[in-house]
Amino acid sequence: MDDLSIKSYMQQLGEKAREASTVLAAVEAKQKNDALLAIADRLQQQAEILKAENAKDLQAGKEKGLEPAMLDRLALTDEGIDKMAEGLRQIAALTDPVGEITNLKYMPSGIQVGHMRVPLGVIGIIYESRPNVTADAAALCLKSGNATILRGGSEAIHSNKAVAACIQNGLKAAGLPSECVQVVETTNRDAVGELLRLKDSVDVIIPRGGKGLIERVSKDSLIPVIKHLDGICHVYIDDDADTDKALNITLNAKSQRYGTCNTLETLLVAESRAQQLLPALKDLFDKKGVELRGCDKTQKIIDCNAASEEDWSTEYLAPILSIKVVDDMDQAIRHINTYSSQHTDTIITQDISKTRRFMREVDSASVMVNASTRFADGFEYGLGAEIGISTDKLHARGPVGLEGLTSVKYVVFGDGHIRT
Amino acid sequence: MDDLSIKSYMQQLGEKAREASTVLAAVEAKQKNDALLAIADRLQQQAEILKAENAKDLQAGKEKGLEPAMLDRLALTDEGIDKMAEGLRQIAALTDPVGEITNLKYMPSGIQVGHMRVPLGVIGIIYESRPNVTADAAALCLKSGNATILRGGSEAIHSNKAVAACIQNGLKAAGLPSECVQVVETTNRDAVGELLRLKDSVDVIIPRGGKGLIERVSKDSLIPVIKHLDGICHVYIDDDADTDKALNITLNAKSQRYGTCNTLETLLVAESRAQQLLPALKDLFDKKGVELRGCDKTQKIIDCNAASEEDWSTEYLAPILSIKVVDDMDQAIRHINTYSSQHTDTIITQDISKTRRFMREVDSASVMVNASTRFADGFEYGLGAEIGISTDKLHARGPVGLEGLTSVKYVVFGDGHIRT
Repeated sequence: MDDLSIKSYMQQLGEKAREASTVLAAVEAKQKNDALLAIADRLQQQAEILKAENAKDLQAGKEKGLEPAMLDRLALTDEGIDKMAEGLRQIAALTDPVGEITNLKYMPSGIQVGHMRVPLGVIGIIYESRPNVTADAAALCLKSGNATILRGGSEAIHSNKAVAACIQNGLKAAGLPSECVQVVETTNRDAVGELLRLKDSVDVIIPRGGKGLIERVSKDSLIPVIKHLDGICHVYIDDDADTDKALNITLNAKSQRYGTCNTLETLLVAESRAQQLLPALKDLFDKKGVELRGCDKTQKIIDCNAASEEDWSTEYLAPILSIKVVDDMDQAIRHINTYSSQHTDTIITQDISKTRRFMREVDSASVMVNASTRFADGFEYGLGAEIGISTDKLHARGPVGLEGLTSVKYVVFGDGHIRT
Repeated sequence: MDDLSIKSYMQQLGEKAREASTVLAAVEAKQKNDALLAIADRLQQQAEILKAENAKDLQAGKEKGLEPAMLDRLALTDEGIDKMAEGLRQIAALTDPVGEITNLKYMPSGIQVGHMRVPLGVIGIIYESRPNVTADAAALCLKSGNATILRGGSEAIHSNKAVAACIQNGLKAAGLPSECVQVVETTNRDAVGELLRLKDSVDVIIPRGGKGLIERVSKDSLIPVIKHLDGICHVYIDDDADTDKALNITLNAKSQRYGTCNTLETLLVAESRAQQLLPALKDLFDKKGVELRGCDKTQKIIDCNAASEEDWSTEYLAPILSIKVVDDMDQAIRHINTYSSQHTDTIITQDISKTRRFMREVDSASVMVNASTRFADGFEYGLGAEIGISTDKLHARGPVGLEGLTSVKYVVFGDGHIRT
């Protein structure tokens, strides 16, 4: 496609999505659930086709010299397909958020005023190589009543088209327009730029992938973006921390998984506890093979590498932990509000007054007491599913589930009421 | 100031606001209320000074040849000053939204997860000539725990500075940093552009004023904008409408005030009711001196001007009403979702099934049944006050009160819980 035809192709996708979104906004839960279940069935029925198409992507990826980790993310196995289908069935089982009316109250004028939850409209999802995102993201958007335009990585194009065929088949089987979910079928990179300019037909953009992708999308988009950038998460061990809780939570937050955004990256320890806790923590982390990088005070207590200024704002996503000894909670809060990516930060303390202040004053999407940062997750928070974790402040903050894909409007019920 | 010094001046304002916002986020309601009451007192005590400063602006405005309506908006009278003070006292009396924890629930893992309402941080307000906005907007932002940077119209600069002096005085009296509310003290137009680029220190921009201002701000801002564009509001009189309710609500929605954004601009009438209702409506509107512009069918029933395609998307803000006869509710909903500015639309009907559909399918910030569009207002909705009416979908939609100036974060309470 040349530039002009990509532009008009994307505009058409946008217009069709807008039309489909008005149908979707009005349908009842059962029809959306029927579609989700039909898609799940088709994914499993078409497993051989999905794997054959995926093999084309894997072959091309190998020829292009993609790294093994990348090929691994790209691969669709029987187990992966079953998991995708299971994910769709779980989303079908969730309560439909659309149409819920809350806070309906009589006003002094006699009118009743309340909020109704409504879809956002059209959502554009831009993601990288994992083909399961295609089904996963489409399902969350569908359940929340939004039409979706999906733009996956070019290295997964055959897999994504095959998944999209199952989705469209399932939509039709449930009597919904197939334009409720559209996959961008060109791998031309200009299509992304065009998508980000469709502000009349797309209501929100959600990028899913690495930092580079998210930064580029945020920079270029004329449409509001729900995004997650870094996860620089902190544990602060307070003077009044319980020793076992401090050790267990710190170890879990850093070592349960290294590559996730809710993994601990910087540990802050109150000076009064450093002598006691740092050697014990060093033992635990040595066993896990975690590299420790400490501030001057830390280095005087345990043998570890020196942390540089840069370490305080680095998301390692690796078995590395930076450690700083702080005077007190005030210094800990200042450090967190300066260096945290406002993702997830936790205090370990038995003191309820300090808890009260930490919860108010730490300005992050998730603020925790005596719990591992690893809990910051849509499933753990009871959202049923998540499309990502937002580090923005407007609209959705923290794990974004079905509600984060909706908005509210005011509903007003009168009985002939006029304003005087 | 030259370009470089404006840039650094605005950056300093931003940094000071960010610092003040961290103090404000943590203070308790009483201190914020003390500040609001102290500001209200000072405004009234300083009435003579305010009027003298305002006289300078009025004089300059007359010399510049400002229109009488503009001079009228600019003028500060004793009554206006009392009203400003009263507004502040009302805001002091509202419940503090900050820190409220909702939906705190135990999860299967044993952690408790809930939402805490928190300030947005720093809000930039860009407005035109009304000096009362200075006090009004500052008060709403203060109460919701946000620091504010206010940029008013250059024609009100002396008045705004005088109001700002009262505000800063009141803040100090309550022990709060005076940087909680800062007024941009240069009238150089470049200051607006600089403000819109302060994305590291300003969290949201709220433009208040005419369409030109709002469009320019939305286009240039690198910061999220909470905005209201047009108010093209509809009344749909359904086949099953009660005649009295239809006539009263239509008259009230159009004629109670002409210049407000929630005023009716286009009336849709079901064909089955047109013969009966249009002549009666014409009588009522003739008495009010409202010009009617009708579709072909309307013109066959009553004597009126012809409506052009452009009329359906025009916000008159004047005694003009466009009228279209529609086949049924489906056509009415299609017309509304095509031409409405998604502000406020109402159906007049006694049929509960149609109500159910209209409420779901009309995609506007306020959707009403048997009530005048004029009710779309923060006070009428029980918000206590409003900073504007948003026609956006993300974050705040419809009248924006204190809650619209806040966000939520997740709070998690564990007792040593780790993820397995």
